Amino acid sequence: MANEIKELMHEIDAFTQERDWDQFHNPKDLALALSIEAAELLEVYLWKQPEDAKKEKVKEELADVFNYALLIASKYDFDVAEIVRAKLARNAEKYPVEKAKGVATKYNEL
Amino acid sequence: MANEIKELMHEIDAFTQERDWDQFHNPKDLALALSIEAAELLEVYLWKQPEDAKKEKVKEELADVFNYALLIASKYDFDVAEIVRAKLARNAEKYPVEKAKGVATKYNEL
Amino acid sequence: MANEIKELMHEIDAFTQERDWDQFHNPKDLALALSIEAAELLEVYLWKQPEDAKKEKVKEELADVFNYALLIASKYDFDVAEIVRAKLARNAEKYPVEKAKGVATKYNEL
Amino acid sequence: MANEIKELMHEIDAFTQERDWDQFHNPKDLALALSIEAAELLEVYLWKQPEDAKKEKVKEELADVFNYALLIASKYDFDVAEIVRAKLARNAEKYPVEKAKGVATKYNEL
Repeated sequence: MANEIKELMHEIDAFTQERDWDQFHNPKDLALALSIEAAELLEVYLWKQPEDAKKEKVKEELADVFNYALLIASKYDFDVAEIVRAKLARNAEKYPVEKAKGVATKYNEL
Repeated sequence: MANEIKELMHEIDAFTQERDWDQFHNPKDLALALSIEAAELLEVYLWKQPEDAKKEKVKEELADVFNYALLIASKYDFDVAEIVRAKLARNAEKYPVEKAKGVATKYNEL
Repeated sequence: MANEIKELMHEIDAFTQERDWDQFHNPKDLALALSIEAAELLEVYLWKQPEDAKKEKVKEELADVFNYALLIASKYDFDVAEIVRAKLARNAEKYPVEKAKGVATKYNEL
Repeated sequence: MANEIKELMHEIDAFTQERDWDQFHNPKDLALALSIEAAELLEVYLWKQPEDAKKEKVKEELADVFNYALLIASKYDFDVAEIVRAKLARNAEKYPVEKAKGVATKYNEL
């Protein structure tokens, strides 16, 4: 498939349109929904060691995160692969290998 | 490209490995990072009408969200397209078109 | 002081009113702001052991959290001590000592 | 009561100790819990106009936010009124009335 991500975005958009949910899906509320799903993913790890979180729950909550992230991308007609690669390129400048190697410091403190 | 998302995940993983950041990237902290990025996206809309958020800022923060979501998927070796479609299928059961059409109610209140 | 929390709420409200910020402070955006500040607090712990977070930073971000939580309480004219105690009473029912002792399980899984 | 907030913190701490939950309550996980509760408060406003959120639900989720914020304050032995007032003083410098009046701009963009 030439365009796996776009295909996925179409399927998610179709799901929304069939239910007439587009009226609720302004980008601000979608960003709220994304934040809420990210917190539900966080909850899978609450009071636990990282390795004790249940994989099945992680999978489900992470799917919800992707769902809303893709809906927002679709709203703005973003090419996901392109914006992620553009950000990686910017991060490569902010965190050059020779400075950032093995250091978990925020770039403005490097 | 047969596998656009996996290709993207490889690029993100390579970025991490070059910097020896894998040692910090336990899934719990990755979930924290994702939640923090989701909040930064939210901030683009704060005190604003949805349409007044700056598209360039949305793009950048959303890219960060995808970055961490893909890192988590990679940690667990999830097939992103598959887990999103599985969730869509489950959501289709929870929100059947005839009940959910035009209604922004949580499924357990339908 | 008979009413320490109310006094604090008055000071925060006065700060807002002097700046004419009440026009931005609808409760939904205040909830966004609170969520964003909670994420900034979270960031103090990111990639760290709990004890390695800098106390000064925790203090500052936690103060922001209280600031917005108190602004929301003020918007709805809530008595903070009262709503916290009401919640504690409800939690005491959901998590009776004999069942919940030493167990970090969500009440609906107890 | 001379010290309403400290009294409240003692009650919350007692609740925790009776249940032996102190073992789970490292400050990092408490910050996760706070973030999760802030997201649950956010959810009360999702897909809604600010004024359509149910007050009873706001009250309950806000109480949870205060609960965890007070637990964190207690962990670090912070004087809540003091840290909030210190932050207000700092904010008064960052957002002087003459510059900030009626403007919802972040201080570093003023």
